[in-house]
Amino acid sequence: MSENTPVTVIVGGVAGGMSAATRLRRLDEERQIIVVERGEHVSFANCGLPYHVSGTIASRGSLLLQTPAALAQRFRLDVRVQTEAVAIDRAARTITLRDVATGTETSQRFDTLVLSPGATPNTPAALAGDARVHTLRDVADLDRIMESLAATVEDAPLQNAVVLGGGYIGVELAENLVARGLSVTIVQRGPQLLSPLDAEMAAPFADHVLESGVALRLGVEVTGGDAESLTLSDGSVLPADLVFSAIGVRPASGLAAESGLALGPHGGILVDELHRTSDPAIFAVGDVAEKTDAATGEPRLLPLAGLANRHGRAVADTIAGTATPSPRALGTAIVGFRGLTAASTGWNERELRAQGRSVRVMHSHPLSHAGYYPGAQMLSIKLIVDPASDRILGAQAVGRDGVDKRIDVIATAMSAGLSASALADLELAYAPQYGSAKDPVNLLGYLNRNRAAGTDATLQWHELEAALDSGAFLLDVRAPGQLAEGLIPGATHIPVEQLRERHHELPAGRIVVHCRVGQGAHTAARLLRNLGHDVVNLDGGYLTWRDAQRSHAIRDNSPVSTPTPEGATR
Amino acid sequence: MSENTPVTVIVGGVAGGMSAATRLRRLDEERQIIVVERGEHVSFANCGLPYHVSGTIASRGSLLLQTPAALAQRFRLDVRVQTEAVAIDRAARTITLRDVATGTETSQRFDTLVLSPGATPNTPAALAGDARVHTLRDVADLDRIMESLAATVEDAPLQNAVVLGGGYIGVELAENLVARGLSVTIVQRGPQLLSPLDAEMAAPFADHVLESGVALRLGVEVTGGDAESLTLSDGSVLPADLVFSAIGVRPASGLAAESGLALGPHGGILVDELHRTSDPAIFAVGDVAEKTDAATGEPRLLPLAGLANRHGRAVADTIAGTATPSPRALGTAIVGFRGLTAASTGWNERELRAQGRSVRVMHSHPLSHAGYYPGAQMLSIKLIVDPASDRILGAQAVGRDGVDKRIDVIATAMSAGLSASALADLELAYAPQYGSAKDPVNLLGYLNRNRAAGTDATLQWHELEAALDSGAFLLDVRAPGQLAEGLIPGATHIPVEQLRERHHELPAGRIVVHCRVGQGAHTAARLLRNLGHDVVNLDGGYLTWRDAQRSHAIRDNSPVSTPTPEGATR
Repeated sequence: MSENTPVTVIVGGVAGGMSAATRLRRLDEERQIIVVERGEHVSFANCGLPYHVSGTIASRGSLLLQTPAALAQRFRLDVRVQTEAVAIDRAARTITLRDVATGTETSQRFDTLVLSPGATPNTPAALAGDARVHTLRDVADLDRIMESLAATVEDAPLQNAVVLGGGYIGVELAENLVARGLSVTIVQRGPQLLSPLDAEMAAPFADHVLESGVALRLGVEVTGGDAESLTLSDGSVLPADLVFSAIGVRPASGLAAESGLALGPHGGILVDELHRTSDPAIFAVGDVAEKTDAATGEPRLLPLAGLANRHGRAVADTIAGTATPSPRALGTAIVGFRGLTAASTGWNERELRAQGRSVRVMHSHPLSHAGYYPGAQMLSIKLIVDPASDRILGAQAVGRDGVDKRIDVIATAMSAGLSASALADLELAYAPQYGSAKDPVNLLGYLNRNRAAGTDATLQWHELEAALDSGAFLLDVRAPGQLAEGLIPGATHIPVEQLRERHHELPAGRIVVHCRVGQGAHTAARLLRNLGHDVVNLDGGYLTWRDAQRSHAIRDNSPVSTPTPEGATR
Repeated sequence: MSENTPVTVIVGGVAGGMSAATRLRRLDEERQIIVVERGEHVSFANCGLPYHVSGTIASRGSLLLQTPAALAQRFRLDVRVQTEAVAIDRAARTITLRDVATGTETSQRFDTLVLSPGATPNTPAALAGDARVHTLRDVADLDRIMESLAATVEDAPLQNAVVLGGGYIGVELAENLVARGLSVTIVQRGPQLLSPLDAEMAAPFADHVLESGVALRLGVEVTGGDAESLTLSDGSVLPADLVFSAIGVRPASGLAAESGLALGPHGGILVDELHRTSDPAIFAVGDVAEKTDAATGEPRLLPLAGLANRHGRAVADTIAGTATPSPRALGTAIVGFRGLTAASTGWNERELRAQGRSVRVMHSHPLSHAGYYPGAQMLSIKLIVDPASDRILGAQAVGRDGVDKRIDVIATAMSAGLSASALADLELAYAPQYGSAKDPVNLLGYLNRNRAAGTDATLQWHELEAALDSGAFLLDVRAPGQLAEGLIPGATHIPVEQLRERHHELPAGRIVVHCRVGQGAHTAARLLRNLGHDVVNLDGGYLTWRDAQRSHAIRDNSPVSTPTPEGATR
């Protein structure tokens, strides 16, 4: 290698860093490519780590996707594990690398530098120095967890595990700890699980988590603990043999900051659409870098593996001279828990309202495939639209089957700038075991068109109380057999089939009509409007209302109570 | 109802017709809406019919989604079953309706008329009048089939069923007949099953069908038969207790033609983007109408339930005064056979080449989700792109899991006009049980970008022979452990990891490099090209080549033979 051979140093040898390294080698055989990784392993399956805890992924080795030797052989990469980047001299274009084992430091020249060190998991200050507290970011973390679990099994039959944080990682940890037979409690500072979802969407997921035996403690945080327990902010005490901290991560941007690179508003490295930092010779990708949000155009932290991998590859293209700007990020994510799936893309209603944006919101509860074909499962889907532009701002879905497909289709539509109404016309693959002739995504498009055209006017679950207080009349048009599921207090029941004959029984003034999922009520609302009534449809019907009630009940740790069918119908 | 009440008559009470009727009522309470249906049932689940044959859908009743009485009650529709439309007086705006049972004819005034009578299944002329021959379009057909099957069970233990036609319906019928315990042969005039797929994509599906015990007779048609058998065009005789004709359908456009409405080039009713026929008071939707193709802009027959349903609804909007043009049609379709799924959207390579279009073709064989998470299944995906515009022209996928999701995402991208390269950047939901950080759809985008940018040059399986004949050198770079799967004759084996040291062993001139699926060969091709060699990558690798060989072998009804690993490696 001559002295003039260009050198790219990549800090971080997992998702973003390794994508950059291998792609760069494919584009450029001559360049010297050095990958430094502080840990012992490169290119491991971060997202698979929780599943080894339960043995779902039985072999630890299967999480190690590459070795430095294999990467040297196939891609001629100079991969240095247990090597830390400790200083960057931007003027001299050198980086100081420290051998973690020996402490020896060397200076390495670079032409381009890619920073992909990831993020550092947060741990609660109240438990500083507590040896029970685990995080799970890398293979070393996993090894420590497996060791603790093995040790506890020998010492005691029952183990109490507390997972701090009810986000995607916390839920995945809880799933795998339960599968291992531990007694698990999730402690979540916020009022709900899975904060990317809105409360009423997270509720059925939380119910499922509760049904599997996991305890939820919402709205509290850890304030301290002794050897066998944790104390929470409400004064309660929780037995705790093992503690897992999954309360978010912070970008590992210390080295970048010390080197004078610009950071974004959330502490991540600020980059442009080519992932260039404020120094054009230095790039940053993955959890350390802030992403540009597709809806707001603002920087945002989105620690997602997909973005890290794709952005790493994009950086290689840019370094090799074929710059491809990355599009702005939506933030699509998915989580499973014992057969139930929740996924989201874009922003949720809570966040958008907090931003002061006006939103058009639709809830639906379609079947995953044609109802007459066995195995159809109910989905709950929420679509959030900018009413001015008809642009899709976000979507959420929960269910046992077909959640990933619908969120992927909507995320694709969002990436492409399709309007919400255009979802109605998508030609999705239909046979009865896969979908419906009008797929759930098509139905969202129809709901949106009806709303945009004024064909349907709706009320959200959180607007119901105020409407009733203002004297609106609540009309339940479900089939009589559906009432056993529960009732919304104060509703009068007239099945949709009887409305033409009985609509004169309705009072003047506003009528809020609801059915089970919103579809029958749409028919009823259209009928009543055509007959001269002032009517709005309760969006998502009884099921969305019930899910919202459940979210409150779960938060308040008390069962929801609704009147029994007897006595409330007429 | 006053004499001035507008009247809409809808001919055909299933997918398109009933979607139009119910939507129209929701938009307009006053209008008289008459739905006439020649059969006994309206709004039945056409696409579910084959699954009752096996009992997968156990209850016949669950296929009957609505009754005339229920539709009258909920939507105030005047539904007349066993009523045939026999003549249209366009000048007078009247339609003659005949009661099928009594023969009584009445004249009905209309303001708007919607024609949705569907299509008529083709049957082979050679079997005219043969009582064994069944078609399956409606509930009456299903009842006849169930009766025949029950009768045969009583008479004989083994039944020989012959399915004429190896398209989606034929395959569904075969699946359900096998599940019922019948001995099944599919007779297909063309050289492959599932003509919407290209031959190499259909081959793994055909293999799966063969493995389930179904016999395939490709490239032949029925020329006659006696009471217990059928004679085929190659002179062979097939035992046949029951015969099912699934050799396509023709639009039931007779009434339209007699009424002077313009037909399209394929015999369906010609309509505009609002589904208006050549008479602006008359609309046509569903299998009777020709669709405008998204890629060519030309009329095309696409008898698909999704289009029928959505176009029916669109017609109601137009009649009610809120016209919404329907986009051009892609033709997305899917079929399952005992756990294996095949789906397609847009055009296939065979059709595009026949149209004289130049195409960029990519094959890939990714896993349905992260390989380290249990249960990952291999998919085969094919993407076809217009090299000039980078527009996606079509896609096909076959596999046990995740086929519907990937085709839906690609169909959405096509509808939105996304370029093939933009597939690389889609933010699809990733956790290891659902996908990969670089999803199979993202990978297609990368393949396309590499091809578009000239970073990768490929050869299709059908171009290999000519390349080798011209003196190209075939290089197999798979890992040694992968060779047992089979070899391409004439290949020299050097694993990709040894190429840097051994590339001087390669001859001057063109090198065709291949691996198992195309990815390792891409790395090898990049490496060799960077070292100065003239190299192309065999698209889709060994697996696509093998599937193509299998397609020939299945067609020729002989097993494929490839050299054993011994002797061909070096």
